[in-house]
Amino acid sequence: MSVIDVASATEKEVTKVTGNKLSIMMFSGTADKFIPLGVLTQAAAAMGMEVNVFVTGFALHGFTKEHHDLPFPTEFAAMAPALAQGMEATHVESWETMLRQAKELGAKVYACSMMCEVMGLKLDDFNDLVDDVVGAATFLQMAEHGETLFI
Amino acid sequence: MSVIDVASATEKEVTKVTGNKLSIMMFSGTADKFIPLGVLTQAAAAMGMEVNVFVTGFALHGFTKEHHDLPFPTEFAAMAPALAQGMEATHVESWETMLRQAKELGAKVYACSMMCEVMGLKLDDFNDLVDDVVGAATFLQMAEHGETLFI
Amino acid sequence: MSVIDVASATEKEVTKVTGNKLSIMMFSGTADKFIPLGVLTQAAAAMGMEVNVFVTGFALHGFTKEHHDLPFPTEFAAMAPALAQGMEATHVESWETMLRQAKELGAKVYACSMMCEVMGLKLDDFNDLVDDVVGAATFLQMAEHGETLFI
Repeated sequence: MSVIDVASATEKEVTKVTGNKLSIMMFSGTADKFIPLGVLTQAAAAMGMEVNVFVTGFALHGFTKEHHDLPFPTEFAAMAPALAQGMEATHVESWETMLRQAKELGAKVYACSMMCEVMGLKLDDFNDLVDDVVGAATFLQMAEHGETLFI
Repeated sequence: MSVIDVASATEKEVTKVTGNKLSIMMFSGTADKFIPLGVLTQAAAAMGMEVNVFVTGFALHGFTKEHHDLPFPTEFAAMAPALAQGMEATHVESWETMLRQAKELGAKVYACSMMCEVMGLKLDDFNDLVDDVVGAATFLQMAEHGETLFI
Repeated sequence: MSVIDVASATEKEVTKVTGNKLSIMMFSGTADKFIPLGVLTQAAAAMGMEVNVFVTGFALHGFTKEHHDLPFPTEFAAMAPALAQGMEATHVESWETMLRQAKELGAKVYACSMMCEVMGLKLDDFNDLVDDVVGAATFLQMAEHGETLFI
């Protein structure tokens, strides 16, 4: 290994360890927070970033086969109709559509094993957006050396 | 290039790619969340970090020329007067003042183009804290290789 | 120093600067958000990660000697009993127990000096989970080159 090779190997290593990866812990279960989930996963996947989503807490209700109405945050309830109208008028896609596009580009969605147990949910209770049920430690490992957001 | 030079170049490279950069996605629009926005941007900018803020969702109302009262979170409404009194008594500056100081040190504030469209807002509708209107993908690129917070 | 040594030193350096570190800014004071605090600190500490928690805002009330009931988010209040029952049935430990386990593995908890002043709290007002009172700039420095979450 020449000195030049060392330098090259090192640059590659640096790129790898700090590289393009977005991990989102999706905890909040209010409807508004699913919009940035859709937008960010779609944008990141389109940019070629590795995208992993860890769904936990009340947000799990956004991914079950059984439909749950996602509540709007109390403080902004009065703005919900105008927001919905604005999204329709500007043809913003639903968060499910955006997340589905991200998944077609490789994004993965995992449900938190502990909260699934607490809420009595199994992999089969989720729709096809969810790839697997994993633990928090597994997700922390996936998230290493990338950007991680808690939503 | 000597072996020593390789080592030095590598250290520099490492510093660059994982270097001092704070990116904040400001989504929550309740009044309390603007305090950490002010504190963190001011502290990070004073430390010489590159600071970029991406304002989206209800938080956009904190940056419009037209005044919007930012709601206090329902769960802590009873604590709002004591908190306001404590901030006055200890001479804590307003979040606008802190963010303005951060901007004097180079911090940048961007409004989310998609949410601007949805809410019918143009760059000219924002006060002078907002530098530009950009898309989520652009912001994700700015945020790469730094710390990113979703508030 | 041989070329091989340079490569090894470099790998170590890379590991160090982008290495295993989780920093959590704990701002939200609703009861539900303390569950991910416990789970993530415990999991990260068990994985050998350096873990630092910066407690600020309403979340400070979760760490005082004087007991404060942590409010449940308004939107999900109806789900609180089922959630508590599920956590008991599946033997999920309390967030305090999980954080205490993380601390036995080296995790540190800091209270935000500015918010302590605003809320009239001193180090002695906190229980033994809190290691010290520090400023935001100090915490940003601790958080550098790791994963940082704003909860």
